[in-house]
Amino acid sequence: MAVKRKAWSEDFTQWFHDIITKAEIIDYRYPIKGFGVWLPYGFKIRKNVLSIMRRLLDDSNHDEMLFPILIPEILFEKESTHIRSFEDESFWVTHGGSTLLDVKLALRPTSETVITPMVKLWIRSHADLPKRIYQIGSIFRYETQATKPLIRIREVTTFKEAHTYHSTHEEALNQVEEAIAIYKKFFDEMAIPYVVSKRPEWDKFAGAESTYAFDTLFPDGRVLQIGTVHDLGQNFGKAFDVTFETKDGGKDFVWQTSYGISERVIAALITIHGDDHGLMLPPDLAPIQVVIIPIPYKKSSEKITEACRSIYKTLSKEGFRVKLDDRPDLTPGSKYYDWEKRGVPMRIEIGPRDVEKEKVTLVRRDTLDRTSCPTEKIVKETKSLLLDIQKRVTKTASDWFNARIATSENIKDAKRKIGTGIVEVAWCGKDECGFEVERSIEARVLGVDPKKASLKGYCCLICGRKATCKVKLARAY
Amino acid sequence: MAVKRKAWSEDFTQWFHDIITKAEIIDYRYPIKGFGVWLPYGFKIRKNVLSIMRRLLDDSNHDEMLFPILIPEILFEKESTHIRSFEDESFWVTHGGSTLLDVKLALRPTSETVITPMVKLWIRSHADLPKRIYQIGSIFRYETQATKPLIRIREVTTFKEAHTYHSTHEEALNQVEEAIAIYKKFFDEMAIPYVVSKRPEWDKFAGAESTYAFDTLFPDGRVLQIGTVHDLGQNFGKAFDVTFETKDGGKDFVWQTSYGISERVIAALITIHGDDHGLMLPPDLAPIQVVIIPIPYKKSSEKITEACRSIYKTLSKEGFRVKLDDRPDLTPGSKYYDWEKRGVPMRIEIGPRDVEKEKVTLVRRDTLDRTSCPTEKIVKETKSLLLDIQKRVTKTASDWFNARIATSENIKDAKRKIGTGIVEVAWCGKDECGFEVERSIEARVLGVDPKKASLKGYCCLICGRKATCKVKLARAY
Repeated sequence: MAVKRKAWSEDFTQWFHDIITKAEIIDYRYPIKGFGVWLPYGFKIRKNVLSIMRRLLDDSNHDEMLFPILIPEILFEKESTHIRSFEDESFWVTHGGSTLLDVKLALRPTSETVITPMVKLWIRSHADLPKRIYQIGSIFRYETQATKPLIRIREVTTFKEAHTYHSTHEEALNQVEEAIAIYKKFFDEMAIPYVVSKRPEWDKFAGAESTYAFDTLFPDGRVLQIGTVHDLGQNFGKAFDVTFETKDGGKDFVWQTSYGISERVIAALITIHGDDHGLMLPPDLAPIQVVIIPIPYKKSSEKITEACRSIYKTLSKEGFRVKLDDRPDLTPGSKYYDWEKRGVPMRIEIGPRDVEKEKVTLVRRDTLDRTSCPTEKIVKETKSLLLDIQKRVTKTASDWFNARIATSENIKDAKRKIGTGIVEVAWCGKDECGFEVERSIEARVLGVDPKKASLKGYCCLICGRKATCKVKLARAY
Repeated sequence: MAVKRKAWSEDFTQWFHDIITKAEIIDYRYPIKGFGVWLPYGFKIRKNVLSIMRRLLDDSNHDEMLFPILIPEILFEKESTHIRSFEDESFWVTHGGSTLLDVKLALRPTSETVITPMVKLWIRSHADLPKRIYQIGSIFRYETQATKPLIRIREVTTFKEAHTYHSTHEEALNQVEEAIAIYKKFFDEMAIPYVVSKRPEWDKFAGAESTYAFDTLFPDGRVLQIGTVHDLGQNFGKAFDVTFETKDGGKDFVWQTSYGISERVIAALITIHGDDHGLMLPPDLAPIQVVIIPIPYKKSSEKITEACRSIYKTLSKEGFRVKLDDRPDLTPGSKYYDWEKRGVPMRIEIGPRDVEKEKVTLVRRDTLDRTSCPTEKIVKETKSLLLDIQKRVTKTASDWFNARIATSENIKDAKRKIGTGIVEVAWCGKDECGFEVERSIEARVLGVDPKKASLKGYCCLICGRKATCKVKLARAY
């Protein structure tokens, strides 16, 4: 049986704020709005998330690098659409000590204008291409809207941005496909369900030819954008004059893509699997996979401690991330509460009876079901239980998500369904009908599935003309 | 036999600039002075360096965290010595978009004033202490002096700072000892020789009670400070009003230490082991430990390729970091040149004769000595050769370093010896004699060895009074 999700579903905002604090993820009491401090436990979750991403990128020929945090205004403003979108939401450095700087420096809100001029120095000919690089670090947005932990912040500390450079548009478009495939694997490993949509023209990244986005769903029925992939065409290549010698001896501007994720991924990880007891971390991501809790009882105390230590050793040696909670001043109950809150997927309790019978008690965090296990079988049981938890949270999340994607054939129905999730409607593809559907349903157009759906007989919800695609709509963060 | 070190010793500045570029460590052509871009190969070296540091800190109860990059002026100026030292060398953010911010924000030049006010929120009583945290990230210094790659830069991207909090001064002082021990292990693992000195009063960190520093030596006879450890006393605790309930129910201000390293460590790693062929990376730090280079020869080419792949597989499976350089358009010679420059500790050459005799040729980077090895023994030989290289570079570096520490009993002799390294002289301990010795020898007082040396009969080089300590001097970066 699953753990209750009443607080989680009925008062999600409160649940989310509570859990960030109680599970010690991040502390937003730093005296600049939208700037937070990663606490040790949160930092470990972040590290595990990033190590999946690093593995996926390293394995697909991306090189990790590190670029400066500051951008001279003169570089920043080179791509005109880009600067129009970002100049008002950038922090600006104007002084070094008390000296006014000759050139204002922006704290990077993203790094296209940092990286492209450097790549210009590294590319001579088609033989230098393709080039795939990424970095992980902070970006800064002077958000004027209300900030929200991990979701709308001013220092995004976990920005992973990949940038790739190609000699043909076709190759760049293939890279877009590959990036989407990489992100799918990434979210699948975290058991985070998503839809991928091609964003409408009016919602593209500033400077992109097209933008694909991953959206997941929160208990309040709103979607959260958790990853984007952009075909940048030759826009930055032209703005920064990045050319290369083509195979036939000619010259062309470089073709470019970029794709990013941020700590919103961690917001999603926390939310998707959470319940009224707190976090529920998929075993692959959990900083602690197994916590061992002694249930001391008078005379047997020493034997219990011994049994706990022995299990701890056995499991550690097998490579599990284990913690033995032997704090003497806390009751077992308060320890359960502590580790359930932090989402440790599996708990081992060892009491006097267990020791006597050479058994241990296993409790899984997702259902709180208890089973007994002979001590000698602990490695095998732990392995299979963790696997089963990983499987179950994946299924639970995807079932919950899929039940909240609906289709609608009229505005009234769409408006009713939009409260709980994503609604798909037929669309003629014209901007004005897109705006009108957003207005009348009070939701945002997420976009079109990159793989085309069958449209036989469907008509645009607004103008009634023949539909050219199905478009997903949702209320969004 | 060792590789020549003529360019390395006679024109070190040029050698260093060349190697940073040619070995693709970091690119400083970014259009803000003192801001660089970590290139993929340099980034991998940096990653290996940091993973040693992370292991040492994690194993000694330090929690990794991440704090904001910006500091509101009002926090930054709370500790008066600290702000006096840093306000002129900080970058200041004054605007968000075109809006003038209410409070100026400094790009952190170090994080005492970021972390202490947060720790204030987390500490109630002695039971919450000690607390040991660290972070790795960028800090910023508006350097007005000439910048120098990895050594004097404006965005220090590899700043590891640890901050610890204690309930007694004694405990804090023990932590200082432990930090020094951790740093010793760190530099030992990188085979970087050093002296540890207690800095004189006039050269302490701004806000510290005392500062201990690690200095290494460069071929130009100048020392480079590569690590510092500070006893901060209660200075920041008082400035930020961080109190806790003591064991006997009273109240006290928290005692604090901090210790840091930066990419200067990587400058040292590159320099200490380098020679006229380029880098020579200790095997434990090398992104590529073994490079395999086929020596193709007409008909045997296919067999050679096969042999190379098989060796590659065998060594990879054993956990060595191996690269097979099968670029078809380059001669073996130019490949040797490439990987020697990048400091790959060991090279395996496989030519027609090797294949025939089921042997391979091994070349070690430190001496360029060649040996032959039966293919079937490659794992054992690689292991022992890499171990031997690690040992040899450690000894070479420490012999070279120790030969450049001298003692002097008069100014003239000290002045002569200071050109090549570190000179130790007797000192009465008075500031005025310290200044005078710095002036007359044209060198900086590094400080006193934390472990006291025998002083029987020694007199201060300046005033002739009885010496209270031996002090090390050197020209410094």
